[in-house]
Amino acid sequence: MLLNLNADLGESFGPWPMGDDPRLLEVVNSANVACGFHAGDPLVMSKTIAASRLAGVSIGAHPGFPDLQGFGRRAMSLPADELRTLVQYQLGALAGMSHSMGLPMTHVKPHGALNNMACEDRAMADVIALAVRDFDPGLIFLAPVMSQLAVAGTDARLTVALEIFADRAYTASGALVSRRQPGAVLETAEACIAHVQAMIEGGGIITVEGNVLPTAFHSICVHGDNAHAVDTARQIRKALLSQGHELLTLPQLMDVN
Amino acid sequence: MLLNLNADLGESFGPWPMGDDPRLLEVVNSANVACGFHAGDPLVMSKTIAASRLAGVSIGAHPGFPDLQGFGRRAMSLPADELRTLVQYQLGALAGMSHSMGLPMTHVKPHGALNNMACEDRAMADVIALAVRDFDPGLIFLAPVMSQLAVAGTDARLTVALEIFADRAYTASGALVSRRQPGAVLETAEACIAHVQAMIEGGGIITVEGNVLPTAFHSICVHGDNAHAVDTARQIRKALLSQGHELLTLPQLMDVN
Amino acid sequence: MLLNLNADLGESFGPWPMGDDPRLLEVVNSANVACGFHAGDPLVMSKTIAASRLAGVSIGAHPGFPDLQGFGRRAMSLPADELRTLVQYQLGALAGMSHSMGLPMTHVKPHGALNNMACEDRAMADVIALAVRDFDPGLIFLAPVMSQLAVAGTDARLTVALEIFADRAYTASGALVSRRQPGAVLETAEACIAHVQAMIEGGGIITVEGNVLPTAFHSICVHGDNAHAVDTARQIRKALLSQGHELLTLPQLMDVN
Amino acid sequence: MLLNLNADLGESFGPWPMGDDPRLLEVVNSANVACGFHAGDPLVMSKTIAASRLAGVSIGAHPGFPDLQGFGRRAMSLPADELRTLVQYQLGALAGMSHSMGLPMTHVKPHGALNNMACEDRAMADVIALAVRDFDPGLIFLAPVMSQLAVAGTDARLTVALEIFADRAYTASGALVSRRQPGAVLETAEACIAHVQAMIEGGGIITVEGNVLPTAFHSICVHGDNAHAVDTARQIRKALLSQGHELLTLPQLMDVN
Repeated sequence: MLLNLNADLGESFGPWPMGDDPRLLEVVNSANVACGFHAGDPLVMSKTIAASRLAGVSIGAHPGFPDLQGFGRRAMSLPADELRTLVQYQLGALAGMSHSMGLPMTHVKPHGALNNMACEDRAMADVIALAVRDFDPGLIFLAPVMSQLAVAGTDARLTVALEIFADRAYTASGALVSRRQPGAVLETAEACIAHVQAMIEGGGIITVEGNVLPTAFHSICVHGDNAHAVDTARQIRKALLSQGHELLTLPQLMDVN
Repeated sequence: MLLNLNADLGESFGPWPMGDDPRLLEVVNSANVACGFHAGDPLVMSKTIAASRLAGVSIGAHPGFPDLQGFGRRAMSLPADELRTLVQYQLGALAGMSHSMGLPMTHVKPHGALNNMACEDRAMADVIALAVRDFDPGLIFLAPVMSQLAVAGTDARLTVALEIFADRAYTASGALVSRRQPGAVLETAEACIAHVQAMIEGGGIITVEGNVLPTAFHSICVHGDNAHAVDTARQIRKALLSQGHELLTLPQLMDVN
Repeated sequence: MLLNLNADLGESFGPWPMGDDPRLLEVVNSANVACGFHAGDPLVMSKTIAASRLAGVSIGAHPGFPDLQGFGRRAMSLPADELRTLVQYQLGALAGMSHSMGLPMTHVKPHGALNNMACEDRAMADVIALAVRDFDPGLIFLAPVMSQLAVAGTDARLTVALEIFADRAYTASGALVSRRQPGAVLETAEACIAHVQAMIEGGGIITVEGNVLPTAFHSICVHGDNAHAVDTARQIRKALLSQGHELLTLPQLMDVN
Repeated sequence: MLLNLNADLGESFGPWPMGDDPRLLEVVNSANVACGFHAGDPLVMSKTIAASRLAGVSIGAHPGFPDLQGFGRRAMSLPADELRTLVQYQLGALAGMSHSMGLPMTHVKPHGALNNMACEDRAMADVIALAVRDFDPGLIFLAPVMSQLAVAGTDARLTVALEIFADRAYTASGALVSRRQPGAVLETAEACIAHVQAMIEGGGIITVEGNVLPTAFHSICVHGDNAHAVDTARQIRKALLSQGHELLTLPQLMDVN
């Protein structure tokens, strides 16, 4: 199977480092780059673009709410025109910088609370998808499987890359089990690998009850916040390759499909 | 003579309005649009782009220091790579939004302390000019006559549009007389019109001592912070047109030259 | 009847003025001063304290969400410890500055979405009330009549000053009619004066259906965002005085009660 | 000799940790707590106050320029009234929070570029010292030996605690050797201990040329940015105690002197 591994990168800010981007860039095929609203700053973005280019990793914008202190994870209620323009502003900032540096920005994935809220709120998902389409209809829209965000992207005639999470349990309706529930997050690399393998074999996501919800998917989201997470990501990559799957960047993958 | 009138627009922020942009857009040919670091926010930028397009006014980025409270007017000391990336981030943000809305961004003019410092500091001016060139070598670089910024733009092979100020007195070396000196700012529309006319006839800027420093110039900077300023700008426009000069947007003008 | 007029002041930020504070200080007895998170900055706060002292107006902290662009009006979802500390931080900032300048800070009134959300959410109201009590149990807690915020303040054994709005219609349950509904905001000074008078005579708030919900109240909230608002506030003051009511600062009033 | 060890704490922000505060609190007697402008946020401040109280460490405000991205290390040019109010705002924020939590704030030490600039600029130093005095004349003013900041504190009749740096070389005039010069920073714990011991025995600071500039001093500044720094700090503490010196909090120490 042709697959993609994506992760969030460039989440440092000013004097504060976050994540082990150099090691993560050896694992993933596509990087979601913070655009300065919830994390990242112009210098961090520039370094992340340069490192991604060297590593052969494709990049996308990772726009978030304007909330550094809350890392874009706090729900905010914004009118549609604020939402549309804050997405386009962040897309432009990253696209312009990456264009200056010779690496095209090829996808978009909303961050944190912006993503979570839009996965359940169709009106909000539409605002985001249309903002992306008006910015550049050629961008790949990276959205969770079975989310309103994915539906909105399809309706906006964007190329939608569907993602699954290697380390998260799914509810009966295909949503992520809340982090507050026990078992929401798979802790070991082995569990993550088994989870991903089951979803590949099942042709869809596996719910906590063990049912298969059939769905296409293209990309697997992994994490790099700490050494353990990078290690897990590395082992997932290794397992996928050893099982004969091919790992591609998002633009390579979505061209093929 | 073919000339351009430029002014700073889009300097509102969130709930706080600034300037009378609708009236100013009837006067100027080109707008320098704040990019969110010293003023402006994504929604304000979007509205400013839409209004400029309707008015037939060309737009440029007006990047500034990251200092909302100080309106980008407080000197800050930044390393070259911070400077380069903060300029490119802001260029990208405005270019992306304006591209989404069907109006190309065609020029750049640094704001406030970023502009003032670079007018005297060649190294800083080079960083800015090269940041602009790497972003898009086709952008017009709007810089004060006889400034290091103008020299750096020329050396970076950018198209440099030279600007004079209708309401500011010039020192013997062609710099602006400090606002702290008496007579630094011309208060009446009549004085501004006479000043501009003298510079057009003299073929250069007129110093406080009354000497001519010969220099080409393309654009006249006017202001719109208050009703009086917009009125003065309007009268300068009227005087120029009645004297037979032609007023063009920056891309129209610099194509001609 | 002994009453108080309160309004939000010090809502300028950096280069952006807001409101006509000098005129409003001639009208109100107590000022709710923005603390830098949704509006205001240290210099604005300092000037607002100085002007309030000269005018004989008592001051209180007006803490808000950390959201300048949204003016603290956008709902944000924060954990309790973030909420508690952001309130105490803002109380401390204003109390310290006002203490330095010889004017004690004597009350607290949450701002915008922080206020609105806490009026309906008892858990959130408790966090705020306890944060205030731990900061200084002698502070007067200014809260809307019939709100969870008022109940939480009372339970925290704070002195609660209850406020009504001169220009807002009330629902059958005593909440404010949403601004999106027609008739939510009373537009004329006459309507506001009649509304206030009816509430004084009725001994409670008057709902849109014309019913009286009996409740004590101590303070009337007026506005100063524009010339019309200040004018209305001035006429409300005049009407109250001519009807024989006495207008006091919050510490004067709550000592009496 | 009675001495104090001080370090900067509470420099995390939102999702980004910085420093190993728990281990550093076992070493120092007094903590300079970031106040939210260059680092720290309300929740971080609250946790730092709580941890300092448990550890028996006295706390002081560490006000900085409003520049999170630059960590307050970028020179900014501010008018006197902006400077005064930004210092008082930060003092108030920390004092209010620490008062709420039962630990008094007992000293002040400016941070980063604010400190460095004021060490050489008497006018700026005066603004800061007077801002502190007007806030609370009982606060201890922690300033580098032989600095304009120390002189300004004395002239403002503040109790001035003079500090030396364990790991920094001094010029012939008593300033810190610029970090850009080789040898500016002492790398090993042994070198730091020898440096401190020489200054204690010499009764003043030791310049790079090996001369003694006689001066009283009360506190030694150590660092905790990384594991190595905390280790060095711990060894300095051990060496001082084994040499028979006594280590006190700033309020204990300055009461004695």
